[in-house]
Amino acid sequence: MKKNISVIGGDLRIVKLIELLAKDNYNVFIYALEGAESLTKLNNVIAVNSIKELANNSKVVIGPIPLSSNKKDINTPFSDKIISLNNLYNNLDNNLFIAGSISNQIIEQFNNRNIQVVDLLNREELAVLNTISTAEGAIQIAIEQTYKTLHNSNVLILGFGRIGKILAKMLTGIGAKVSCEARKDADLAWIKAYGYTAIHINDLNKEINKFDIIMNTIPSMILNKERLDLIEKDCLIIDLASAPGGVDREYAKEKGIKVIWALSLPGKVAPITSAEFIQETIYNVLKEQK
Amino acid sequence: MKKNISVIGGDLRIVKLIELLAKDNYNVFIYALEGAESLTKLNNVIAVNSIKELANNSKVVIGPIPLSSNKKDINTPFSDKIISLNNLYNNLDNNLFIAGSISNQIIEQFNNRNIQVVDLLNREELAVLNTISTAEGAIQIAIEQTYKTLHNSNVLILGFGRIGKILAKMLTGIGAKVSCEARKDADLAWIKAYGYTAIHINDLNKEINKFDIIMNTIPSMILNKERLDLIEKDCLIIDLASAPGGVDREYAKEKGIKVIWALSLPGKVAPITSAEFIQETIYNVLKEQK
Amino acid sequence: MKKNISVIGGDLRIVKLIELLAKDNYNVFIYALEGAESLTKLNNVIAVNSIKELANNSKVVIGPIPLSSNKKDINTPFSDKIISLNNLYNNLDNNLFIAGSISNQIIEQFNNRNIQVVDLLNREELAVLNTISTAEGAIQIAIEQTYKTLHNSNVLILGFGRIGKILAKMLTGIGAKVSCEARKDADLAWIKAYGYTAIHINDLNKEINKFDIIMNTIPSMILNKERLDLIEKDCLIIDLASAPGGVDREYAKEKGIKVIWALSLPGKVAPITSAEFIQETIYNVLKEQK
Amino acid sequence: MKKNISVIGGDLRIVKLIELLAKDNYNVFIYALEGAESLTKLNNVIAVNSIKELANNSKVVIGPIPLSSNKKDINTPFSDKIISLNNLYNNLDNNLFIAGSISNQIIEQFNNRNIQVVDLLNREELAVLNTISTAEGAIQIAIEQTYKTLHNSNVLILGFGRIGKILAKMLTGIGAKVSCEARKDADLAWIKAYGYTAIHINDLNKEINKFDIIMNTIPSMILNKERLDLIEKDCLIIDLASAPGGVDREYAKEKGIKVIWALSLPGKVAPITSAEFIQETIYNVLKEQK
Repeated sequence: MKKNISVIGGDLRIVKLIELLAKDNYNVFIYALEGAESLTKLNNVIAVNSIKELANNSKVVIGPIPLSSNKKDINTPFSDKIISLNNLYNNLDNNLFIAGSISNQIIEQFNNRNIQVVDLLNREELAVLNTISTAEGAIQIAIEQTYKTLHNSNVLILGFGRIGKILAKMLTGIGAKVSCEARKDADLAWIKAYGYTAIHINDLNKEINKFDIIMNTIPSMILNKERLDLIEKDCLIIDLASAPGGVDREYAKEKGIKVIWALSLPGKVAPITSAEFIQETIYNVLKEQK
Repeated sequence: MKKNISVIGGDLRIVKLIELLAKDNYNVFIYALEGAESLTKLNNVIAVNSIKELANNSKVVIGPIPLSSNKKDINTPFSDKIISLNNLYNNLDNNLFIAGSISNQIIEQFNNRNIQVVDLLNREELAVLNTISTAEGAIQIAIEQTYKTLHNSNVLILGFGRIGKILAKMLTGIGAKVSCEARKDADLAWIKAYGYTAIHINDLNKEINKFDIIMNTIPSMILNKERLDLIEKDCLIIDLASAPGGVDREYAKEKGIKVIWALSLPGKVAPITSAEFIQETIYNVLKEQK
Repeated sequence: MKKNISVIGGDLRIVKLIELLAKDNYNVFIYALEGAESLTKLNNVIAVNSIKELANNSKVVIGPIPLSSNKKDINTPFSDKIISLNNLYNNLDNNLFIAGSISNQIIEQFNNRNIQVVDLLNREELAVLNTISTAEGAIQIAIEQTYKTLHNSNVLILGFGRIGKILAKMLTGIGAKVSCEARKDADLAWIKAYGYTAIHINDLNKEINKFDIIMNTIPSMILNKERLDLIEKDCLIIDLASAPGGVDREYAKEKGIKVIWALSLPGKVAPITSAEFIQETIYNVLKEQK
Repeated sequence: MKKNISVIGGDLRIVKLIELLAKDNYNVFIYALEGAESLTKLNNVIAVNSIKELANNSKVVIGPIPLSSNKKDINTPFSDKIISLNNLYNNLDNNLFIAGSISNQIIEQFNNRNIQVVDLLNREELAVLNTISTAEGAIQIAIEQTYKTLHNSNVLILGFGRIGKILAKMLTGIGAKVSCEARKDADLAWIKAYGYTAIHINDLNKEINKFDIIMNTIPSMILNKERLDLIEKDCLIIDLASAPGGVDREYAKEKGIKVIWALSLPGKVAPITSAEFIQETIYNVLKEQK
């Protein structure tokens, strides 16, 4: 028996997600996705005319990732419609709303109206899987933006969290010599166990001049003026940390150090794979609802 | 300036640790290690005649790993002396005692006498580093006990904790096709991100017949009768879980399935490397004391 | 004691090579490189006014890689000068001329004038080292031009020669599932020994529909109409083979299959690393001269 | 339709090979394998009473690997029968005889009697595949015979031929720091391209003191007195080279350096996998006969 699901707004990943859901035998009701031509050919994808209709056809409503960029309207890059968060709240009712990067303030608004909310970006499994695309995007940038091969380059990764772990694995796989910075003894032990060079944060200033490329994953000012003064002049910095990033970009510019601040790589690098990961995560969410 | 440190009892890893400490410019006072000949040639290793002397010469006293096997006397494989835990408590005073695998009951006894205790095996960094030797030991057993190469063998790892992670990495590095079982969505995501085949515990029975080797890291009865009935007859099981292990060994024997229960591999496989890891961990402990 | 060496024309790799030679204590005499600003600041790089001067200052004269693109003039992208091959022959005398991609016809001309010639691109070690940059360039393209991650993608490499070997290693290192096609039993054995899936040329048509990406290294028409009809429609083809390539590009275009013909990647992807490899190879050549 | 094949003598690999051939729908006629109990239960394995019968039932006759250890009789570890080479020659006729390690002298004897001979150990694909078991055997020995983990150990491989290549790959995969010695520039380039440390034979004496383990694959005296004097005292040497090996074993013994001369590992480490590789190679041989 076919099941129903509703989707409102969203970028190319959401479009690909809809294709996957349709292929997996869902009836998908969509709104604010007029520009996604690939969807018009699919039998069990049905464009509806209002949020109300979305809400009525399915308990589950999927929204954009991230939900909103201006805290006022939801993101609808495949539509000319402007849909305010207010509009969304007021037309859902007793639904389960699943989207990405939803602020606590907004979650409260949903809850006040008896709408259950799941933020996909708080799901550990999606965060882990997204590191794969992020790491590949960082590797692409590194190959593109340097005059050297990654093979045999000295690469420093700042932070050994989710992104750091997968980045270190892939960079090693491509032949780079990888060092990882961390502050906890257990993290440093993991770095060694995985075969990378471990650098304690306290030794960072002493070691930081040895690298061709530095990739940052820490969302606080780790590459400050003092450290930027210590690195090699033609070192490339790729900052993967979410705002405010971890690099004094202004000072780097002054010194002629190249910094690439690479955000939201999963959607850009691999929208299809991202859609597969989102699908998998949504299925996990739905299983837990039962 | 030389620093003092005391050591009582212990196995080959402790002997190697003493050599490392002596090389790193410590005066090492030792007791209940008469059988360790290599130590007699070292200038700054001083054999003393009582626990009292150990306690007086250094605030820090290092004991065996594990501390005791019979809950009565401490482990002294390099000595004929029998030293009861009582004897140890009563002769230390205001010391910092560092050893391995100390029960809560024993810790209480120490604390009652104003002796601070650190259990090395509770240190995350040592647990992580020990997985390296454990994984190598498991690989040695796997090569030895099968008629096939590990290369291209299908290997299943039960549990994706510390040992599972490093084991999966090394086995892949040697050419095995590695699947990992876990029950949490986030763990399954990590398994995929690292490139292994992920098997949800709920699908285990369906998949378990596909493996040449199964390595268990879960310390509860996961390979029960039902599952042993499902595996291939010439599948090798290596159980790395601490007591009571995770295999119904009796039933396996009945069925002619080979099970190797491999315990305490770090000390057996690589006592020198283990000593280095212990040294590193002790230094971390001492840093934190300051 | 400083040694002399001469360089005429060439691209960014040659400029970087000159910097490396200067750093390694050579006096470098250069001609037809006026546009390379970085060289003007180096003390032991001396711009001269004629090929004659180059020839007189050093027995060894290094030329462009490739030497000529039109079979008439040598390649001088950093100069407005037009220098014919004739002009070059006639002004060298008793020199050792080292450049890249020199046709037999041209070699004869040199030899007639008593000039010894070494073609760097015939040096096995340089060919091997260049595969590193080629592989990284191919990986960059693959990440850029697909909507999926390389991780977990099915990638087919056609040919298991130099490029195929390093490409397979790096792709596996980044998490792709790599299959390699070959026709000799020994090559197929190597493919298996390295842990990739081996596909005999005779089974290619049967398997070719399974891939997200196909990378070709064979310089003859392997992806003909018949095989293009068999591959997945959204499969990306990266052709790394030198002219005439290995893909029926016209037919692929007709069918809407994306083909990237990626040539001369080492110079584009990693001019500094390429220069280091060229330097190493030139030193090997000079050692053999003694 | 079932095909016939004959087998005479041989070790556990040959027994496993017979099982594989029987499973692949061959009628297998065997002689001088009475001790192999597993074969008695197989329907299409038929024990015959003379070499003559073997020769009559099938054009192809498979013999031991290696064929003979004493140059007089063939190897029959699963039988009490003593079968001279002469006996073998005289009872075959117009057959294709396939075995391993057959001297030129013996081949001549076969040819004189109009018997075609294939030496499996001259087949490149089998030599390549055998390196897998050899490498695993060497790794097992290395884990067993040292007090350190392979992870983070410095390992030197002498020679970058078939065994060297796969050994380097596996050792790196398990976490060792691998250096490889070679004498040709092209081999040194490959070593670098694969990410190992390259050591030119001319620099060997300067570097040889840096290793925890040395694995030799060169069948001539490379670890002579001079070099043994230079290595670390507790360095483990594993000699994988066929007779006469590459180590001055007597001098090493004198100096207390541990040397393991590990021969014929494939048959010992992985007889089943070896049998699979032999089967694959025999099939290649038969294809070429057509």
